[in-house]
Amino acid sequence: MPLPVPALPEGVDPAWLPPDAFRAVGTRRTLIRGSGLLVDSAHAEVAEACARFGGRVVRDAGPGAPPYDLVLELRGTDGTEAFTYVREGGRTTVTASGQAGLLYGLFHVVRLGEDAFTGERPQEEHRPALALRMLDHWDNVAVHPVMGQVERGYAGGSLFWQDGRARGDLERVRAYGRLLAACGINAVAVNNVNVHDTEAHLLTDRIGEVAAIAGALRPYGIRTHLSVSFAAPMVLGGLPTADPLDASVRAWWAGATARVYEDIEDFGGYVVKADSEGQPGPFAYGRSHADGANLLAAALEPYGGTVHWRAFVYDHRQDWRDRTTDRARAAYDHFVPLDGEFASNAVLQVKHGPMDFQVREPVSPLIGAMPRTRLAVEVQASQEYTGQQRHVCWLGPMWSEVLRFRVDGETEVGSLARGGLVAVSNAGDDPFWTGHPLAQANLYTFGRLAWRPDADPDGVLDEWIRLTFGTGPATGLRAVLDGSWRTYEKYTAPLGVGFMVQPGHHYGPSVDGYEYSPWGTYHFADRDGVGVDRSAATGTGFAAQYAKPWCEVYESPDTCPDEQLLFFHHVSYDHVLHSGKTVIQHIYDTHFEGVEEVEEAREVWVSLAGVIDPARHARGVERYEEQLRSAREWRDQINSYFFRKSGVPDAQGRRIY
Amino acid sequence: MPLPVPALPEGVDPAWLPPDAFRAVGTRRTLIRGSGLLVDSAHAEVAEACARFGGRVVRDAGPGAPPYDLVLELRGTDGTEAFTYVREGGRTTVTASGQAGLLYGLFHVVRLGEDAFTGERPQEEHRPALALRMLDHWDNVAVHPVMGQVERGYAGGSLFWQDGRARGDLERVRAYGRLLAACGINAVAVNNVNVHDTEAHLLTDRIGEVAAIAGALRPYGIRTHLSVSFAAPMVLGGLPTADPLDASVRAWWAGATARVYEDIEDFGGYVVKADSEGQPGPFAYGRSHADGANLLAAALEPYGGTVHWRAFVYDHRQDWRDRTTDRARAAYDHFVPLDGEFASNAVLQVKHGPMDFQVREPVSPLIGAMPRTRLAVEVQASQEYTGQQRHVCWLGPMWSEVLRFRVDGETEVGSLARGGLVAVSNAGDDPFWTGHPLAQANLYTFGRLAWRPDADPDGVLDEWIRLTFGTGPATGLRAVLDGSWRTYEKYTAPLGVGFMVQPGHHYGPSVDGYEYSPWGTYHFADRDGVGVDRSAATGTGFAAQYAKPWCEVYESPDTCPDEQLLFFHHVSYDHVLHSGKTVIQHIYDTHFEGVEEVEEAREVWVSLAGVIDPARHARGVERYEEQLRSAREWRDQINSYFFRKSGVPDAQGRRIY
Repeated sequence: MPLPVPALPEGVDPAWLPPDAFRAVGTRRTLIRGSGLLVDSAHAEVAEACARFGGRVVRDAGPGAPPYDLVLELRGTDGTEAFTYVREGGRTTVTASGQAGLLYGLFHVVRLGEDAFTGERPQEEHRPALALRMLDHWDNVAVHPVMGQVERGYAGGSLFWQDGRARGDLERVRAYGRLLAACGINAVAVNNVNVHDTEAHLLTDRIGEVAAIAGALRPYGIRTHLSVSFAAPMVLGGLPTADPLDASVRAWWAGATARVYEDIEDFGGYVVKADSEGQPGPFAYGRSHADGANLLAAALEPYGGTVHWRAFVYDHRQDWRDRTTDRARAAYDHFVPLDGEFASNAVLQVKHGPMDFQVREPVSPLIGAMPRTRLAVEVQASQEYTGQQRHVCWLGPMWSEVLRFRVDGETEVGSLARGGLVAVSNAGDDPFWTGHPLAQANLYTFGRLAWRPDADPDGVLDEWIRLTFGTGPATGLRAVLDGSWRTYEKYTAPLGVGFMVQPGHHYGPSVDGYEYSPWGTYHFADRDGVGVDRSAATGTGFAAQYAKPWCEVYESPDTCPDEQLLFFHHVSYDHVLHSGKTVIQHIYDTHFEGVEEVEEAREVWVSLAGVIDPARHARGVERYEEQLRSAREWRDQINSYFFRKSGVPDAQGRRIY
Repeated sequence: MPLPVPALPEGVDPAWLPPDAFRAVGTRRTLIRGSGLLVDSAHAEVAEACARFGGRVVRDAGPGAPPYDLVLELRGTDGTEAFTYVREGGRTTVTASGQAGLLYGLFHVVRLGEDAFTGERPQEEHRPALALRMLDHWDNVAVHPVMGQVERGYAGGSLFWQDGRARGDLERVRAYGRLLAACGINAVAVNNVNVHDTEAHLLTDRIGEVAAIAGALRPYGIRTHLSVSFAAPMVLGGLPTADPLDASVRAWWAGATARVYEDIEDFGGYVVKADSEGQPGPFAYGRSHADGANLLAAALEPYGGTVHWRAFVYDHRQDWRDRTTDRARAAYDHFVPLDGEFASNAVLQVKHGPMDFQVREPVSPLIGAMPRTRLAVEVQASQEYTGQQRHVCWLGPMWSEVLRFRVDGETEVGSLARGGLVAVSNAGDDPFWTGHPLAQANLYTFGRLAWRPDADPDGVLDEWIRLTFGTGPATGLRAVLDGSWRTYEKYTAPLGVGFMVQPGHHYGPSVDGYEYSPWGTYHFADRDGVGVDRSAATGTGFAAQYAKPWCEVYESPDTCPDEQLLFFHHVSYDHVLHSGKTVIQHIYDTHFEGVEEVEEAREVWVSLAGVIDPARHARGVERYEEQLRSAREWRDQINSYFFRKSGVPDAQGRRIY
């Protein structure tokens, strides 16, 4: 008998897999053919739905079986994730040649609901565009004195760890895996890329704790990955060096990796942040990042594992007085010369923008500039800079824009992320998983876009709403979520200028918070103008890191898109945008509009009382209070700041403090 | 036999009581007459000095005794602190009618050194101008998650507490008491005025730990005080209220206080921060601060104890948009109406300035405005806003200016602080006691100014240098210390404008760090000018809180002293100061000068290698590196900030980034 569907602890939100989502399946007769752990998971889903709604499920019935409404059939064992879907003669059939495909096929049927059982539909092939669809958890095992249990986590504690130990609540981990499988995610890194002392031991003497998590995620087709310290051979192995070309170091990694695979045979691989923000790395030994990544790739290669090497390398001891050094340039400058040098099982994991998950950045020029390297694109579901799951900010449109970015105007959507799409996870032990109940939409959307980067994000949003809430509140929810990223952008940092958050915790406005900091994040606002000149002609040259046409588009303020203008150019406050407005008036207008839009969204949410379950609704009301307070603070600080600097009054005479 | 002079742990600096400071006494023959704990302490000092330098000490010798060079004679037991000093017939005699006076007299002789034993000197009366000369320790018992072991402490851990427990190292506490007695301090509050959960228990079940500290300090004439929570009857006593007029609350305090005095018969009293920065207080019950203070005063009164009630009350949830609310006004507005309502053993403890220990503030208008209230003036030795004991900033001149401030042009120096002078202590378990070895000068100077507020601070500085370092490096040390407050002021926030520090830790520049904060600390810099209009005519009215002539002096930019200008007025960058310079040029000039002065001071310090002991010198070198780095950062950020805003170039064409 397969394990039952994981039980949620009292009060924990079912997210996009509430019982009702299974009504269509649960009222039907289903046949499941095939065997294996993931087929068992599919079986458990159907069995639970049938127990609730009165349908029937049969496993591996013989030829004389009665007619079925749904057949899920495994026709191979090749480990692939694709499935076919067809409806003919009143029967819906899903076939797959790998177990994961069968499970994904079932969730496809669940998403379709009654539509899966009506009419006819010719055979369709479904396969993920990206083989790796991954969540990175920035979870610490031990509570970090500054960063806490989850670094940049806004959803309570960790699902995996608590106060130095594994939580042990594997039922909740199983439930998490189930949610992830239902949106197509197939890989999870279970600890923070900043690997502290306690966490380093997960690789060796504490690998059993990782194996237990892997065991809970495996039935949902999810492979477990581990963030490791580049200095592990020294910290854990007692070697005098971590030099990637040193034979003893290579042997140590080979041995350590072999032992990992003894405990976790389908282990996904390592995630490494090296030579970045204080983490150790190959630079200390005069080696390149390719040397570093290939060291771990070699250790993983015999077992089919992958190393994810983060490209987030820059000088965080920059001097604000030096206007030539540009943090935005760093990843490209560091990594492009290494194209072709990375092993085939080394993935270079690149943040979608050149800075750090700002509300608006251009797509990183590194993406597309390393054709001979497996690149993964990293986004951040956890909203560090976009409201920290206290503000509604649905990031689907942002991520879709990134994925649709054509480096040379030709490339296929998503093809630049052939090493995978990775999100910093936004889930924690919060009853709603993600702090704000509506932030679940980001997690779901991420998984679906990773499966199909060319999907229409609005369609994904509708899908999430229908699964999570049913059809009742759909219009209202669409209204509050659909434009929420643009709204957030309006009341925060304008025109792509970037960091204007409070230092440290990164919540709320502080226009000059990083203006004189060593973190390399400046806006250079003075009494005449604002923005960073990153042109090739007069600035830092960052714009020239792009292929044509983008290097030309970004080079000139005349062609640069308005929303990126201050990222690429320092312009005067009376510079006229393509919109016809001056920069200063744009700042005022968007900030007033942004707050008004939050006020409207809050009204809509309030009006949904009665059609949304009370706990969710109450949490949302509380969060909207804070969002509105914070949006007003942003509006007033940004407007006052630029009014004080520019001296230009608002053309509409609204109140600026 | 009396307890010996406390032994310093290996590596701990002897500060202003090195063995050499006792050379003159130690080579003489001394007679000590009288008995008691403090006489024993004096005896131990002389005995140790004689053991080292070959002199002799006799206790209570009869009439036939041989001639003595020094006689210390107790002629009463009245507990007073005064002593007489006379030198005649080749003999130096100190007499006192209280034990403490005798001990202070001995330290007076030590300070005089050989001068105490040469020539003749008519009888002098020495008595402290202020009866209470107190240090408040902001030490936590348990390490606070944000503030650490010592809130705003820059000298390592606490001398009293460690990781939730009393340290137990009473020998170091004794050594601390001895240092304090030698500069005239007679009261210590042993825990933070922000009383957290653990610390609240010191009042009741953990009073034994306080008693042990009191026992170590008592031989040096120091009474121990305790910071308590106003909510103690609820937190500790389980009462439903802490209402100061509630009979059960009054009974609870009476009982708790009686038990304190059972353990510590000379207990000094309570220190309370109520209704301030989140601490509980009488406002919750609709009672006044006088009601609150008198509650505790009544409990302490039978035993001769005192309550120190801090007047640091303001709205720390202020809205920066509201330019009428002025934090500077708050203490006066809250407390002046209560003049005459405080019990005679209630002391209102007032920060010297109206804001928060800034490098430059006017004297608080509250001081002098409550003639029927015992007021204590509070200064901050720990340099929270003046370099945190990483920068040399000798505060003697600042404190002297405060003490010499004549509210009405008539009052006697120091008389306004008749409730005492209190400093936030700058000492911790650092080997040099105070982080920077030169920061010891602040602690010493504080004690001496509390004894004699009209003392010339430069004379006190010379005294400290001579005791601590001997005569060798005196010129150099005077050079680096004497103007160090002015130097610090030059490279930091200009013209009394106040807060421009980084939020949270308060170290280093952040011009807008508190500009949009709820803490009520703004400079209102825009493209035209800077400063806070606190005039009565057009501003917040704060200037009118002063008596004449000050309300008139401060009211107009024409008469307001330059160094306070931006505290009282918002002026344009081209406003011409009394110095003849424009505000903007003053900003540039002082910031360049300040850094140059640090460079010079550092050179002087470096040149003292060989005449200062190596450990002290090395620590100083390390601190000067940091001071210089930080001063340059201040210079460049402040100059760039105001250049970006004003657009006015430096008249001397120096580099502004």
